[in-house]
Amino acid sequence: MSEVRLKHFGWGREGEGASAEEEAFARGRAAQRFGGLPSDEVAPPRLEEIKLTAPRLTPPATLAAICSSETYDRAAHTYGKSYPEYVRGLNGDYANAPDVVAYPRNETEVAAVLDWAGSAAAAVTPFGGGSTVAGGVEPKIIPGRHKGAVTIDLKHLGRVVEVDRASRAALIEGGAYGPALEAQLKPHGLTLRHFPQSYEFSTLGGWIATRSGGHFATLYTHIDDLVESLRVVTPKGVLETRRLPGSGAGPSPDRLIIGSEGTLGIITQAWMRLQDRPRFRAGGAVRFKDFFTAARALRQVSQSGLYPANCRILDPQEARNTGASDGSAAIMVLAFESGDHDLGPWMKRALECCADHGGTPEAAEGSDAHREGAAGRWRTAFIRMPYLVERLIRIGVINDTFETAITWDRFEAFHDRIKEATVRAIKDATGRPGEVTCRCTHVYPDGPAPYFTFHALGRHGALIEQWRAIKSAALDAVIDGSGTVTHHHSVGRDHRPWYDRQRPPLFAAALRAAKRELDPQGLLNPGILIDPA
Amino acid sequence: MSEVRLKHFGWGREGEGASAEEEAFARGRAAQRFGGLPSDEVAPPRLEEIKLTAPRLTPPATLAAICSSETYDRAAHTYGKSYPEYVRGLNGDYANAPDVVAYPRNETEVAAVLDWAGSAAAAVTPFGGGSTVAGGVEPKIIPGRHKGAVTIDLKHLGRVVEVDRASRAALIEGGAYGPALEAQLKPHGLTLRHFPQSYEFSTLGGWIATRSGGHFATLYTHIDDLVESLRVVTPKGVLETRRLPGSGAGPSPDRLIIGSEGTLGIITQAWMRLQDRPRFRAGGAVRFKDFFTAARALRQVSQSGLYPANCRILDPQEARNTGASDGSAAIMVLAFESGDHDLGPWMKRALECCADHGGTPEAAEGSDAHREGAAGRWRTAFIRMPYLVERLIRIGVINDTFETAITWDRFEAFHDRIKEATVRAIKDATGRPGEVTCRCTHVYPDGPAPYFTFHALGRHGALIEQWRAIKSAALDAVIDGSGTVTHHHSVGRDHRPWYDRQRPPLFAAALRAAKRELDPQGLLNPGILIDPA
Repeated sequence: MSEVRLKHFGWGREGEGASAEEEAFARGRAAQRFGGLPSDEVAPPRLEEIKLTAPRLTPPATLAAICSSETYDRAAHTYGKSYPEYVRGLNGDYANAPDVVAYPRNETEVAAVLDWAGSAAAAVTPFGGGSTVAGGVEPKIIPGRHKGAVTIDLKHLGRVVEVDRASRAALIEGGAYGPALEAQLKPHGLTLRHFPQSYEFSTLGGWIATRSGGHFATLYTHIDDLVESLRVVTPKGVLETRRLPGSGAGPSPDRLIIGSEGTLGIITQAWMRLQDRPRFRAGGAVRFKDFFTAARALRQVSQSGLYPANCRILDPQEARNTGASDGSAAIMVLAFESGDHDLGPWMKRALECCADHGGTPEAAEGSDAHREGAAGRWRTAFIRMPYLVERLIRIGVINDTFETAITWDRFEAFHDRIKEATVRAIKDATGRPGEVTCRCTHVYPDGPAPYFTFHALGRHGALIEQWRAIKSAALDAVIDGSGTVTHHHSVGRDHRPWYDRQRPPLFAAALRAAKRELDPQGLLNPGILIDPA
Repeated sequence: MSEVRLKHFGWGREGEGASAEEEAFARGRAAQRFGGLPSDEVAPPRLEEIKLTAPRLTPPATLAAICSSETYDRAAHTYGKSYPEYVRGLNGDYANAPDVVAYPRNETEVAAVLDWAGSAAAAVTPFGGGSTVAGGVEPKIIPGRHKGAVTIDLKHLGRVVEVDRASRAALIEGGAYGPALEAQLKPHGLTLRHFPQSYEFSTLGGWIATRSGGHFATLYTHIDDLVESLRVVTPKGVLETRRLPGSGAGPSPDRLIIGSEGTLGIITQAWMRLQDRPRFRAGGAVRFKDFFTAARALRQVSQSGLYPANCRILDPQEARNTGASDGSAAIMVLAFESGDHDLGPWMKRALECCADHGGTPEAAEGSDAHREGAAGRWRTAFIRMPYLVERLIRIGVINDTFETAITWDRFEAFHDRIKEATVRAIKDATGRPGEVTCRCTHVYPDGPAPYFTFHALGRHGALIEQWRAIKSAALDAVIDGSGTVTHHHSVGRDHRPWYDRQRPPLFAAALRAAKRELDPQGLLNPGILIDPA
């Protein structure tokens, strides 16, 4: 575990941020996009400037050692990283800060904190790394039911407890951050290879609770498929599933927990399916004349049974913004990885599929192709982007990404509808044109997962309502167009109204009934996924 | 839809059965195994000999045209194909025959039958093809709650409603049998390629309700992964999920229905993910010195990322019983299939993995390798086996297969423990030795799915208790050894006691609560998966 603590405001840990060069590039692109940038810049409040109300709860003496009501702990656990949360943080609005942050050191203490929360009528928010971009960790209490808010941070549950080399699986604690988890697996020659954009600042339990999407562009995209079994502390006790490579015994208990976003229990441990560390790589970037042509090649590759580790397409503007091309072509970032065999035949056939659609490979194709050329530039920009989003908010830029998935038959019309709705909403909300770009980061044989990024120049004081107008228009188009409100960012509080339109009403009833059994007092994340019973 | 109706007793349709040659082979093996066979043979009652009690329910006039209380319909829907059910059928025990069998022609009629069942307080059994080997379709009523039993047979809902070629998906009705479904997909160049052993006599809805395992030995083994969306009629209305290639929006609604074994609703339609029909094939059989050596090769192949379509291992005795070898070697049946590319590099690498464990390929390796040599002999025996099981019961043979899954670290000890427990139980229950063989039909990177077949010679009049003693000892070993009570045969009534030990108690509570929402009167399959509320 790093000793440098997470920022109370912004992406990453204290002392980290965009470099001067990165910021200059992003500012340059933004100035070009908006015809100049405003000179006024709002600075986030320093920790000592943040005003919090007095805590409404006091933990019992037995828990005092693992609980804190210090300003840092409360402020750093008030928000995730969604756009309106950043704006509220910038504005010094910490009204919903938790009263107490608990840092249990083991499962017994997790249960003890839940027991105390039950007796104190406290709403409980499970906190992974707090990197949610959908409003997933802000505490909410229901007046009359809850007397305060406790956030449970599992950062002390970060161990790889056991490694089963034969089955390529490991028992890992729910609070393990990406890098710490990989560092513990590395000596065994194994890797989870689950690398969401937030990898450094998110945890295994958070990934499972939100159905995170990771490294693989095909096949093993979601964490769902990597879970072998779970151990979950609920207000009614521990729910533990059996380690099984496959089963046909009733509906999968794991699948009820996966995606439950902290509403049913706290994931303290999971047996995870691992991979051998890759020894063979092949990859590179392929240029296409336009995005839909690239998408047709993407479809062919996704239906070929080749299963590339990476297979992402960027529209020309997205490619330009990330430095992966000059904006004259759409780009496919293509890569195969294996711990077992040379990938020449796989890459050769995938490039043939691309050639069927006029795709021309970039020159670089070495073992480090994923770090070179267009693919490498895109990769670096992708990992660094969150620092820049945070940076540009201060000058009133509205920059956000929403993501969905759709079957191939609907993809092109769906893309156009969403892009048009978002472009129009930016103009309507901010009075000036912005930019909307698209990439497909994950792909399934039956359809892609398009990610849309939008850039608008807003006005301090109105940023949240401007953001909401744009995002609402976009998500209306997603839901009306038969997509999903989220491919892997989760539902959180930001997506809830659209999730309600997507989720079958009878499933909502079933989920609410299940929650009543596991969390009869309604302590956990009230209002997430379903209304309180 | 075939016009030849299903047998009221036995496997398959009227007029079908084992050939004289097949029967002679099976009898010869059995005689060898048991040192001779008894000469007395019990014949199943002819339809006109079956005595049924008078129906306790009368459908309303509006449903009369689609309902039947004829002896054939009631008798043919009393049982599935599990061992104790065969024995009871042989004994003429039809005490639990449904009072009425309904054959709705569309979803509206499915809902109307459920509505009537609710008003008449009838227990409802959804009937796929009735090929369950776990006691999944025998009607049960709870005295005081239910006044009779209605079975709903969806055989008229057998259409492929819509094909989406771009996404390689089709909307298919729940009552579609395997061959009918494939025949409708074939003109589109597509296939579901889900071929459980019961393929000819089972339906899409049945496969989904029971988490059926099909053609693929790796990767896409269970029907779960082939479901894109579902439409389910529950007593509270229709639950329909969105067609999505991937989603991160809350727990998957599909996964609550998949494996629900008819307890939550009746699956009337599903959008299913399809494959291109294979144009390239490579495969054959590989010989190993013993089963565990074959298993180590199986593990290596399963962890290689090659994803063979078939990759099954048979222990020497199993190989001998199916004619795949002379019993001196364990056999791996290995095959790759693709609609996209030549499989030479895939097969070559898989054979290298086998060679690392001393595996030697059989000669035949052509495009029809899956129908030739040891692999082909095994395939034919596999498909024909159910006819022989049925045939040999009549002379008192107890023959059954149970299946499980286990992580690799536990596999060898688990195998030995189960085999020993079963061998011992056969001796204890029947007073003479029998035979227990093992194969792994599906394999995951983290573990195999071993299937155990046992052969015992029982005594008419005691067959059910003898079978139960053997099966109980076997399943105790499975559950105590950390396996799953079923890999894909489903839970049904036969596996329920062990499922109760496997399923987390809090998940049982959640499932029961979900059922109360969708089926508040407890009409659907009372006692399946969970006790009635």
